[in-house]
Amino acid sequence: MKAGFFQFSPAFGDIDSNVNRVINALSGADADLIVLPELFSTGYQFVSKQEVESLSEEIPSGDTTQALAALSIRRNMYIVAGISEKSGGQLYNSAVITGPQGYIGTYRKTHLFFEEKLWFSPGDTGFRVWETPIGRIGIMICFDWYFPESCRTLALRGAQIIAHPSNLVLPNCPDAMVTRCLENRVYAVTANRTGAEARGGKSQLTYIGSSQVTSFDGTILHRATRDDEELFVAEIEPAKADNKDINQFNNLFADRRTDFY
Amino acid sequence: MKAGFFQFSPAFGDIDSNVNRVINALSGADADLIVLPELFSTGYQFVSKQEVESLSEEIPSGDTTQALAALSIRRNMYIVAGISEKSGGQLYNSAVITGPQGYIGTYRKTHLFFEEKLWFSPGDTGFRVWETPIGRIGIMICFDWYFPESCRTLALRGAQIIAHPSNLVLPNCPDAMVTRCLENRVYAVTANRTGAEARGGKSQLTYIGSSQVTSFDGTILHRATRDDEELFVAEIEPAKADNKDINQFNNLFADRRTDFY
Repeated sequence: MKAGFFQFSPAFGDIDSNVNRVINALSGADADLIVLPELFSTGYQFVSKQEVESLSEEIPSGDTTQALAALSIRRNMYIVAGISEKSGGQLYNSAVITGPQGYIGTYRKTHLFFEEKLWFSPGDTGFRVWETPIGRIGIMICFDWYFPESCRTLALRGAQIIAHPSNLVLPNCPDAMVTRCLENRVYAVTANRTGAEARGGKSQLTYIGSSQVTSFDGTILHRATRDDEELFVAEIEPAKADNKDINQFNNLFADRRTDFY
Repeated sequence: MKAGFFQFSPAFGDIDSNVNRVINALSGADADLIVLPELFSTGYQFVSKQEVESLSEEIPSGDTTQALAALSIRRNMYIVAGISEKSGGQLYNSAVITGPQGYIGTYRKTHLFFEEKLWFSPGDTGFRVWETPIGRIGIMICFDWYFPESCRTLALRGAQIIAHPSNLVLPNCPDAMVTRCLENRVYAVTANRTGAEARGGKSQLTYIGSSQVTSFDGTILHRATRDDEELFVAEIEPAKADNKDINQFNNLFADRRTDFY
Protein backbone atom coordinates (compact mmCIF):
# COMPACT_ATOMS: atom_id res chain seq x y z
CA MET A 1 0.00 0.00 0.00
CA LYS A 2 1.18 3.52 -0.77
CA ALA A 3 1.31 6.19 1.91
CA GLY A 4 2.84 9.63 1.95
CA PHE A 5 2.44 13.34 2.44
CA PHE A 6 1.97 16.63 0.68
CA GLN A 7 4.33 19.23 2.14
CA PHE A 8 3.65 22.81 1.17
CA SER A 9 3.28 26.35 2.51
CA PRO A 10 -0.39 27.25 3.10
CA ALA A 11 -1.39 30.86 2.46
CA PHE A 12 -2.71 32.32 5.71
CA GLY A 13 -6.48 32.71 5.79
CA ASP A 14 -7.06 31.71 2.18
CA ILE A 15 -8.97 28.47 2.62
CA ASP A 16 -10.12 28.25 -1.00
CA SER A 17 -6.63 28.62 -2.34
CA ASN A 18 -5.15 26.09 0.08
CA VAL A 19 -7.84 23.51 -0.56
CA ASN A 20 -7.51 23.95 -4.32
CA ARG A 21 -3.78 23.59 -4.09
CA VAL A 22 -4.23 20.25 -2.36
CA ILE A 23 -6.84 19.12 -4.88
CA ASN A 24 -4.48 19.96 -7.73
CA ALA A 25 -1.47 18.34 -6.07
CA LEU A 26 -3.32 15.13 -5.27
CA SER A 27 -5.07 14.83 -8.61
CA GLY A 28 -2.08 13.03 -10.03
CA ALA A 29 -1.07 11.12 -6.90
CA ASP A 30 -0.77 7.37 -6.98
CA ALA A 31 -1.45 6.85 -3.27
CA ASP A 32 -3.73 5.04 -0.84
CA LEU A 33 -3.13 7.45 2.04
CA ILE A 34 -1.99 11.06 1.97
CA VAL A 35 -1.36 13.09 5.09
CA LEU A 36 -1.56 16.90 4.95
CA PRO A 37 -0.10 19.39 7.44
CA GLU A 38 -1.78 20.61 10.62
CA LEU A 39 -4.23 23.48 9.95
CA PHE A 40 -3.49 23.06 6.26
CA SER A 41 -6.46 25.10 5.08
CA THR A 42 -6.07 28.16 7.32
CA GLY A 43 -2.41 28.63 8.15
CA TYR A 44 -1.15 28.57 11.71
CA GLN A 45 -0.22 31.91 13.26
CA PHE A 46 -3.51 33.34 14.43
CA VAL A 47 -3.58 36.71 16.19
CA SER A 48 -6.95 36.54 17.95
CA LYS A 49 -9.59 34.06 18.92
CA GLN A 50 -12.05 35.92 16.70
CA GLU A 51 -9.75 35.31 13.76
CA VAL A 52 -9.59 31.59 14.56
CA GLU A 53 -13.36 31.49 14.86
CA SER A 54 -13.86 33.22 11.53
CA LEU A 55 -11.65 30.64 9.81
CA SER A 56 -12.95 27.56 11.62
CA GLU A 57 -15.46 25.15 10.16
CA GLU A 58 -17.82 22.54 11.44
CA ILE A 59 -16.91 18.95 10.74
CA PRO A 60 -18.08 17.27 8.58
CA SER A 61 -20.48 19.88 7.21
CA GLY A 62 -17.83 22.55 6.50
CA ASP A 63 -16.53 23.19 3.01
CA THR A 64 -13.02 21.92 3.70
CA THR A 65 -14.11 18.54 5.03
CA GLN A 66 -16.62 18.26 2.19
CA ALA A 67 -13.91 19.01 -0.36
CA LEU A 68 -11.57 16.44 1.18
CA ALA A 69 -14.33 13.83 1.29
CA ALA A 70 -15.14 14.45 -2.37
CA LEU A 71 -11.45 14.23 -3.27
CA SER A 72 -11.11 10.97 -1.33
CA ILE A 73 -14.10 9.49 -3.14
CA ARG A 74 -12.93 10.70 -6.55
CA ARG A 75 -9.35 9.48 -6.04
CA ASN A 76 -10.26 6.34 -4.03
CA MET A 77 -7.78 7.54 -1.42
CA TYR A 78 -7.61 8.09 2.33
CA ILE A 79 -6.67 11.58 3.45
CA VAL A 80 -5.75 12.82 6.92
CA ALA A 81 -5.71 16.61 7.19
CA GLY A 82 -5.46 19.23 9.91
CA ILE A 83 -8.44 21.59 10.15
CA SER A 84 -9.48 24.37 12.53
CA GLU A 85 -12.78 23.05 13.85
CA LYS A 86 -15.68 24.82 15.51
CA SER A 87 -18.21 22.80 17.42
CA GLY A 88 -20.75 23.81 20.08
CA GLY A 89 -19.06 27.12 20.82
CA GLN A 90 -15.62 25.50 21.15
CA LEU A 91 -12.67 25.64 18.77
CA TYR A 92 -10.40 22.64 18.28
CA ASN A 93 -7.13 22.00 16.47
CA SER A 94 -8.45 18.91 14.71
CA ALA A 95 -7.67 16.43 11.99
CA VAL A 96 -10.18 14.64 9.81
CA ILE A 97 -9.83 11.34 8.07
CA THR A 98 -11.71 10.82 4.83
CA GLY A 99 -11.77 7.82 2.52
CA PRO A 100 -13.37 6.25 -0.54
CA GLN A 101 -16.74 6.41 1.23
CA GLY A 102 -16.31 10.02 2.30
CA TYR A 103 -15.93 11.46 5.79
CA ILE A 104 -14.77 8.92 8.39
CA GLY A 105 -13.86 10.67 11.63
CA THR A 106 -12.14 13.40 13.60
CA TYR A 107 -9.32 13.63 16.10
CA ARG A 108 -8.94 16.73 18.29
CA LYS A 109 -5.36 17.58 19.33
CA THR A 110 -4.68 16.39 22.85
CA HIS A 111 -1.54 18.40 23.65
CA LEU A 112 -1.81 22.03 22.54
CA PHE A 113 1.42 23.93 21.82
CA PHE A 114 2.26 27.51 22.78
CA GLU A 115 -0.40 30.10 21.78
CA GLU A 116 -2.73 27.37 20.56
CA LYS A 117 -3.74 27.35 24.23
CA LEU A 118 -5.15 30.86 23.72
CA TRP A 119 -7.36 29.81 20.83
CA PHE A 120 -8.28 26.17 21.07
CA SER A 121 -9.90 23.89 23.63
CA PRO A 122 -7.84 20.83 24.54
CA GLY A 123 -8.93 17.85 22.47
CA ASP A 124 -11.60 15.66 24.01
CA THR A 125 -11.61 12.74 21.56
CA GLY A 126 -8.59 10.87 22.89
CA PHE A 127 -6.35 8.94 20.55
CA ARG A 128 -8.39 7.13 17.93
CA VAL A 129 -7.58 4.36 15.49
CA TRP A 130 -9.63 3.66 12.39
CA GLU A 131 -9.72 0.21 10.85
CA THR A 132 -9.71 0.55 7.06
CA PRO A 133 -9.06 -1.83 4.16
CA ILE A 134 -5.59 -0.28 3.76
CA GLY A 135 -4.64 -0.64 7.42
CA ARG A 136 -5.39 0.62 10.90
CA ILE A 137 -4.73 4.35 10.95
CA GLY A 138 -4.17 6.36 14.13
CA ILE A 139 -3.85 10.13 14.25
CA MET A 140 -1.81 12.49 16.38
CA ILE A 141 -1.13 16.17 15.63
CA CYS A 142 2.26 17.90 15.75
CA PHE A 143 3.28 18.51 19.42
CA ASP A 144 1.54 15.28 20.48
CA TRP A 145 4.80 13.61 19.35
CA TYR A 146 6.60 15.12 22.36
CA PHE A 147 4.60 12.91 24.74
CA PRO A 148 5.55 9.25 24.33
CA GLU A 149 2.09 8.32 25.56
CA SER A 150 0.51 9.59 22.31
CA CYS A 151 2.12 7.08 19.93
CA ARG A 152 2.11 4.42 22.64
CA THR A 153 -1.63 4.74 23.15
CA LEU A 154 -2.29 4.62 19.42
CA ALA A 155 -0.04 1.58 18.98
CA LEU A 156 -1.62 -0.26 21.92
CA ARG A 157 -5.00 0.43 20.32
CA GLY A 158 -3.79 -1.34 17.19
CA ALA A 159 -2.56 1.46 14.93
CA GLN A 160 -0.24 0.23 12.19
CA ILE A 161 0.29 3.68 10.72
CA ILE A 162 0.45 6.96 12.64
CA ALA A 163 -0.79 9.85 10.49
CA HIS A 164 0.84 12.97 11.91
CA PRO A 165 -0.24 16.36 10.51
CA SER A 166 2.25 18.94 11.78
CA ASN A 167 3.36 22.57 11.75
CA LEU A 168 6.76 21.99 13.32
CA VAL A 169 8.96 24.90 14.32
CA LEU A 170 11.28 23.07 16.77
CA PRO A 171 14.01 20.94 15.18
CA ASN A 172 13.64 17.69 17.13
CA CYS A 173 10.62 15.88 15.77
CA PRO A 174 11.95 14.19 12.62
CA ASP A 175 14.72 12.39 14.54
CA ALA A 176 12.40 11.65 17.45
CA MET A 177 9.95 9.92 15.11
CA VAL A 178 12.60 7.25 14.62
CA THR A 179 12.38 6.52 18.35
CA ARG A 180 8.57 6.65 18.28
CA CYS A 181 8.42 4.11 15.46
CA LEU A 182 11.08 1.84 16.96
CA GLU A 183 9.57 1.71 20.43
CA ASN A 184 6.11 0.90 19.05
CA ARG A 185 6.98 -0.88 15.79
CA VAL A 186 4.58 1.27 13.79
CA TYR A 187 4.86 3.27 10.59
CA ALA A 188 4.49 7.03 10.78
CA VAL A 189 3.80 9.70 8.19
CA THR A 190 4.69 13.15 9.50
CA ALA A 191 3.35 15.85 7.15
CA ASN A 192 4.84 19.21 7.96
CA ARG A 193 4.49 22.58 6.27
CA THR A 194 7.17 24.87 4.88
CA GLY A 195 7.50 28.64 4.80
CA ALA A 196 7.26 31.24 7.55
CA GLU A 197 4.61 33.41 9.15
CA ALA A 198 5.00 36.72 11.03
CA ARG A 199 1.54 38.08 11.57
CA GLY A 200 0.34 41.08 13.60
CA GLY A 201 3.75 41.99 14.92
CA LYS A 202 4.43 38.52 16.32
CA SER A 203 7.83 36.85 16.16
CA GLN A 204 8.34 34.99 12.93
CA LEU A 205 7.58 31.29 12.94
CA THR A 206 9.74 29.35 10.51
CA TYR A 207 8.46 25.88 9.74
CA ILE A 208 11.05 23.16 9.34
CA GLY A 209 9.55 21.14 6.49
CA SER A 210 11.37 17.79 6.74
CA SER A 211 8.16 15.80 6.40
CA GLN A 212 9.01 12.17 6.89
CA VAL A 213 7.84 8.62 6.33
CA THR A 214 9.32 6.37 9.02
CA SER A 215 9.19 2.58 8.99
CA PHE A 216 8.25 0.25 11.86
CA ASP A 217 11.93 -0.62 12.35
CA GLY A 218 12.99 3.01 12.65
CA THR A 219 14.25 3.36 9.09
CA ILE A 220 13.63 6.79 7.58
CA LEU A 221 12.05 5.88 4.24
CA HIS A 222 12.17 9.51 3.15
CA ARG A 223 12.68 12.94 4.62
CA ALA A 224 11.66 16.01 2.61
CA THR A 225 13.83 19.11 2.46
CA ARG A 226 13.24 22.07 4.74
CA ASP A 227 11.82 24.42 2.13
CA ASP A 228 10.56 22.59 -0.93
CA GLU A 229 6.98 21.74 -1.72
CA GLU A 230 6.79 18.00 -2.19
CA LEU A 231 4.30 15.23 -2.76
CA PHE A 232 5.91 11.98 -1.64
CA VAL A 233 4.54 8.44 -1.51
CA ALA A 234 6.26 5.28 -0.21
CA GLU A 235 5.30 1.63 -0.52
CA ILE A 236 4.68 0.28 2.98
CA GLU A 237 3.34 -2.97 4.46
CA PRO A 238 1.12 -2.08 7.44
CA ALA A 239 0.69 -5.73 8.52
CA LYS A 240 4.37 -5.77 9.44
CA ALA A 241 3.52 -3.40 12.27
CA ASP A 242 1.42 -6.14 13.88
CA ASN A 243 4.49 -8.20 14.74
CA LYS A 244 6.05 -6.67 17.83
CA ASP A 245 8.86 -9.26 18.02
CA ILE A 246 12.29 -7.69 17.76
CA ASN A 247 14.07 -11.05 18.21
CA GLN A 248 13.17 -14.58 19.32
CA PHE A 249 13.09 -13.54 23.00
CA ASN A 250 11.65 -10.03 22.94
CA ASN A 251 8.20 -8.83 21.99
CA LEU A 252 7.84 -5.11 22.62
CA PHE A 253 4.28 -5.36 23.87
CA ALA A 254 4.47 -8.66 25.75
CA ASP A 255 7.63 -7.40 27.48
CA ARG A 256 5.92 -4.31 28.90
CA ARG A 257 5.78 -4.51 32.68
CA THR A 258 2.89 -2.22 33.42
CA ASP A 259 2.96 -2.90 37.18
CA PHE A 260 6.19 -0.94 37.29
CA TYR A 261 5.12 2.10 35.22
CA MET B 1 28.47 18.89 39.47
CA LYS B 2 30.53 16.51 37.37
CA ALA B 3 29.02 13.35 35.92
CA GLY B 4 30.30 10.90 33.36
CA PHE B 5 31.18 7.35 32.44
CA PHE B 6 34.02 4.90 32.14
CA GLN B 7 33.70 3.03 28.83
CA PHE B 8 35.90 -0.05 28.47
CA SER B 9 35.92 -3.71 27.42
CA PRO B 10 35.54 -6.02 30.45
CA ALA B 11 37.40 -9.34 30.31
CA PHE B 12 34.85 -12.13 30.49
CA GLY B 13 34.76 -13.87 33.86
CA ASP B 14 37.72 -12.03 35.34
CA ILE B 15 36.04 -10.06 38.11
CA ASP B 16 39.28 -9.11 39.88
CA SER B 17 40.82 -7.72 36.73
CA ASN B 18 37.70 -5.76 35.77
CA VAL B 19 37.24 -4.29 39.21
CA ASN B 20 40.91 -3.32 39.43
CA ARG B 21 40.72 -1.72 36.03
CA VAL B 22 37.88 0.46 37.23
CA ILE B 23 39.69 1.31 40.46
CA ASN B 24 42.75 2.37 38.48
CA ALA B 25 40.76 4.34 35.92
CA LEU B 26 38.75 6.20 38.55
CA SER B 27 41.67 6.90 40.85
CA GLY B 28 42.47 10.06 38.92
CA ALA B 29 38.90 11.04 38.05
CA ASP B 30 37.61 14.46 39.01
CA ALA B 31 33.96 13.45 39.16
CA ASP B 32 30.93 13.41 41.46
CA LEU B 33 29.16 10.59 39.61
CA ILE B 34 30.61 7.88 37.40
CA VAL B 35 28.46 5.32 35.59
CA LEU B 36 29.97 1.98 34.58
CA PRO B 37 28.65 -0.47 31.98
CA GLU B 38 26.05 -3.18 32.60
CA LEU B 39 27.62 -6.36 34.05
CA PHE B 40 30.93 -4.51 34.13
CA SER B 41 32.63 -7.00 36.45
CA THR B 42 31.68 -10.25 34.69
CA GLY B 43 31.26 -9.60 30.98
CA TYR B 44 27.99 -10.24 29.21
CA GLN B 45 27.81 -13.31 26.98
CA PHE B 46 27.09 -16.17 29.37
CA VAL B 47 26.69 -19.69 28.02
CA SER B 48 24.84 -21.34 30.91
CA LYS B 49 22.90 -20.47 34.01
CA GLN B 50 25.54 -22.26 36.10
CA GLU B 51 28.14 -19.94 34.65
CA VAL B 52 26.06 -16.90 35.57
CA GLU B 53 25.57 -18.28 39.06
CA SER B 54 29.28 -18.89 39.54
CA LEU B 55 30.02 -15.25 38.62
CA SER B 56 27.17 -13.66 40.52
CA GLU B 57 27.53 -12.00 43.91
CA GLU B 58 25.28 -11.01 46.73
CA ILE B 59 24.64 -7.30 47.16
CA PRO B 60 25.98 -5.56 49.17
CA SER B 61 28.10 -8.29 50.78
CA GLY B 62 29.86 -9.41 47.59
CA ASP B 63 33.41 -8.36 46.78
CA THR B 64 32.45 -6.18 43.80
CA THR B 65 29.93 -4.06 45.69
CA GLN B 66 32.36 -3.82 48.61
CA ALA B 67 35.13 -2.66 46.28
CA LEU B 68 32.85 -0.06 44.68
CA ALA B 69 31.67 1.17 48.07
CA ALA B 70 35.27 1.52 49.26
CA LEU B 71 36.18 3.34 46.06
CA SER B 72 33.20 5.70 46.48
CA ILE B 73 34.22 6.47 50.05
CA ARG B 74 37.87 6.95 49.14
CA ARG B 75 37.13 9.14 46.14
CA ASN B 76 34.07 10.92 47.65
CA MET B 77 32.19 9.95 44.50
CA TYR B 78 28.91 8.29 43.51
CA ILE B 79 29.20 5.22 41.31
CA VAL B 80 26.45 3.36 39.45
CA ALA B 81 27.59 -0.02 38.13
CA GLY B 82 26.04 -3.11 36.56
CA ILE B 83 26.54 -6.32 38.54
CA SER B 84 25.31 -9.90 38.18
CA GLU B 85 23.44 -10.38 41.45
CA LYS B 86 22.42 -13.54 43.28
CA SER B 87 19.78 -13.32 45.95
CA GLY B 88 17.57 -15.98 47.52
CA GLY B 89 18.14 -18.52 44.74
CA GLN B 90 17.42 -15.94 42.01
CA LEU B 91 19.82 -14.21 39.64
CA TYR B 92 19.29 -10.61 38.60
CA ASN B 93 20.88 -8.26 36.09
CA SER B 94 21.33 -5.48 38.61
CA ALA B 95 22.98 -2.14 39.16
CA VAL B 96 24.23 -0.80 42.46
CA ILE B 97 24.66 2.78 43.53
CA THR B 98 27.40 3.59 46.00
CA GLY B 99 28.45 6.94 47.43
CA PRO B 100 30.64 8.74 49.96
CA GLN B 101 28.90 6.79 52.75
CA GLY B 102 29.25 3.43 50.97
CA TYR B 103 26.55 1.18 49.55
CA ILE B 104 23.25 2.97 48.84
CA GLY B 105 20.93 0.72 46.86
CA THR B 106 20.17 -1.67 44.04
CA TYR B 107 18.06 -1.64 40.90
CA ARG B 108 17.19 -4.93 39.15
CA LYS B 109 16.70 -4.69 35.38
CA THR B 110 13.02 -4.54 34.51
CA HIS B 111 13.16 -5.41 30.80
CA LEU B 112 15.49 -8.32 30.06
CA PHE B 113 16.99 -8.55 26.58
CA PHE B 114 17.46 -11.67 24.46
CA GLU B 115 19.21 -14.58 26.27
CA GLU B 116 19.24 -12.66 29.53
CA LYS B 117 15.77 -14.21 29.84
CA LEU B 118 17.46 -17.61 30.11
CA TRP B 119 19.67 -16.59 33.00
CA PHE B 120 18.08 -13.82 35.00
CA SER B 121 14.78 -13.26 36.78
CA PRO B 122 12.92 -10.13 35.71
CA GLY B 123 13.71 -7.26 38.06
CA ASP B 124 11.35 -6.83 40.98
CA THR B 125 12.55 -3.49 42.36
CA GLY B 126 10.77 -1.20 39.93
CA PHE B 127 12.34 2.09 38.88
CA ARG B 128 14.02 3.77 41.83
CA VAL B 129 15.30 7.27 42.40
CA TRP B 130 17.84 8.14 45.07
CA GLU B 131 18.01 11.62 46.54
CA THR B 132 21.64 12.56 47.09
CA PRO B 133 23.50 15.81 47.76
CA ILE B 134 24.61 15.87 44.10
CA GLY B 135 21.11 15.34 42.69
CA ARG B 136 18.30 12.82 42.38
CA ILE B 137 19.65 9.80 40.53
CA GLY B 138 17.46 7.22 38.82
CA ILE B 139 18.75 4.01 37.29
CA MET B 140 17.74 2.00 34.25
CA ILE B 141 19.80 -0.70 32.55
CA CYS B 142 20.49 -1.01 28.81
CA PHE B 143 17.33 -2.37 27.03
CA ASP B 144 15.09 -0.54 29.51
CA TRP B 145 15.68 2.48 27.22
CA TYR B 146 13.52 0.85 24.53
CA PHE B 147 10.42 1.27 26.69
CA PRO B 148 9.50 4.94 27.07
CA GLU B 149 7.86 4.08 30.38
CA SER B 150 11.27 3.46 32.00
CA CYS B 151 12.62 6.99 31.73
CA ARG B 152 9.14 8.45 32.14
CA THR B 153 8.60 6.63 35.41
CA LEU B 154 12.01 7.71 36.71
CA ALA B 155 11.39 11.32 35.68
CA LEU B 156 7.92 11.39 37.24
CA ARG B 157 9.50 10.08 40.44
CA GLY B 158 11.81 13.07 40.43
CA ALA B 159 14.99 11.83 38.78
CA GLN B 160 17.19 14.64 37.50
CA ILE B 161 19.86 12.30 36.15
CA ILE B 162 19.29 8.88 34.60
CA ALA B 163 22.27 6.60 35.19
CA HIS B 164 22.18 4.02 32.41
CA PRO B 165 24.66 1.12 32.56
CA SER B 166 24.54 -0.63 29.19
CA ASN B 167 25.95 -3.38 26.97
CA LEU B 168 24.44 -2.15 23.73
CA VAL B 169 24.67 -4.20 20.55
CA LEU B 170 21.85 -2.55 18.56
CA PRO B 171 22.66 0.83 16.99
CA ASN B 172 19.65 2.88 18.08
CA CYS B 173 20.11 3.81 21.72
CA PRO B 174 22.49 6.79 21.56
CA ASP B 175 20.18 8.74 19.23
CA ALA B 176 17.09 7.61 21.13
CA MET B 177 18.51 8.97 24.37
CA VAL B 178 18.12 12.43 22.86
CA THR B 179 14.38 11.77 22.66
CA ARG B 180 14.31 10.28 26.17
CA CYS B 181 16.00 13.37 27.63
CA LEU B 182 13.89 15.82 25.63
CA GLU B 183 10.57 14.25 26.46
CA ASN B 184 11.38 14.14 30.19
CA ARG B 185 13.80 17.06 30.53
CA VAL B 186 16.33 14.97 32.42
CA TYR B 187 20.03 14.38 32.05
CA ALA B 188 21.22 10.88 31.15
CA VAL B 189 24.57 9.16 31.37
CA THR B 190 24.66 6.05 29.20
CA ALA B 191 27.77 3.98 29.97
CA ASN B 192 28.31 1.32 27.35
CA ARG B 193 31.10 -1.20 26.87
CA THR B 194 33.36 -1.73 23.88
CA GLY B 195 34.81 -4.88 22.35
CA ALA B 196 33.22 -8.14 21.25
CA GLU B 197 32.40 -11.53 22.72
CA ALA B 198 31.88 -14.88 20.96
CA ARG B 199 31.71 -17.51 23.65
CA GLY B 200 30.87 -21.21 23.45
CA GLY B 201 30.12 -21.19 19.74
CA LYS B 202 27.59 -18.38 19.99
CA SER B 203 27.31 -15.62 17.40
CA GLN B 204 29.65 -12.76 18.09
CA LEU B 205 28.25 -9.83 19.99
CA THR B 206 29.90 -6.55 19.04
CA TYR B 207 29.27 -3.75 21.50
CA ILE B 208 28.77 -0.30 20.06
CA GLY B 209 30.61 1.85 22.62
CA SER B 210 29.23 5.35 21.96
CA SER B 211 28.66 6.02 25.65
CA GLN B 212 26.93 9.33 25.95
CA VAL B 213 26.09 12.18 28.29
CA THR B 214 22.85 13.82 27.17
CA SER B 215 21.47 17.08 28.53
CA PHE B 216 17.92 17.83 29.67
CA ASP B 217 17.31 19.77 26.44
CA GLY B 218 18.41 16.90 24.21
CA THR B 219 21.89 18.23 23.55
CA ILE B 220 24.53 15.49 23.29
CA LEU B 221 27.23 16.81 25.64
CA HIS B 222 29.59 14.05 24.54
CA ARG B 223 29.48 10.75 22.69
CA ALA B 224 32.43 8.34 22.98
CA THR B 225 33.82 6.48 19.99
CA ARG B 226 32.74 2.96 19.17
CA ASP B 227 35.97 1.22 20.17
CA ASP B 228 38.09 3.35 22.48
CA GLU B 229 38.34 3.04 26.21
CA GLU B 230 37.39 6.40 27.70
CA LEU B 231 36.80 8.08 31.01
CA PHE B 232 34.65 11.14 30.39
CA VAL B 233 33.17 13.68 32.78
CA ALA B 234 30.88 16.66 31.97
CA GLU B 235 29.79 19.58 34.11
CA ILE B 236 26.01 19.39 34.52
CA GLU B 237 23.37 21.24 36.57
CA PRO B 238 20.83 18.70 37.82
CA ALA B 239 18.48 21.37 39.22
CA LYS B 240 17.78 22.46 35.64
CA ALA B 241 15.98 19.15 35.18
CA ASP B 242 13.39 20.25 37.74
CA ASN B 243 11.99 22.89 35.40
CA LYS B 244 9.73 21.13 32.91
CA ASP B 245 8.73 24.34 31.10
CA ILE B 246 9.69 24.32 27.44
CA ASN B 247 8.14 27.74 26.80
CA GLN B 248 5.78 30.13 28.59
CA PHE B 249 2.74 28.01 27.71
CA ASN B 250 4.01 24.44 27.90
CA ASN B 251 5.18 22.44 30.89
CA LEU B 252 5.93 18.86 29.90
CA PHE B 253 4.52 17.36 33.08
CA ALA B 254 1.57 19.71 33.65
CA ASP B 255 0.57 19.19 30.00
CA ARG B 256 0.30 15.41 30.34
CA ARG B 257 -3.30 14.30 29.87
CA THR B 258 -3.29 11.01 31.69
CA ASP B 259 -7.02 10.41 31.19
CA PHE B 260 -6.24 9.84 27.53
CA TYR B 261 -3.26 7.48 27.91
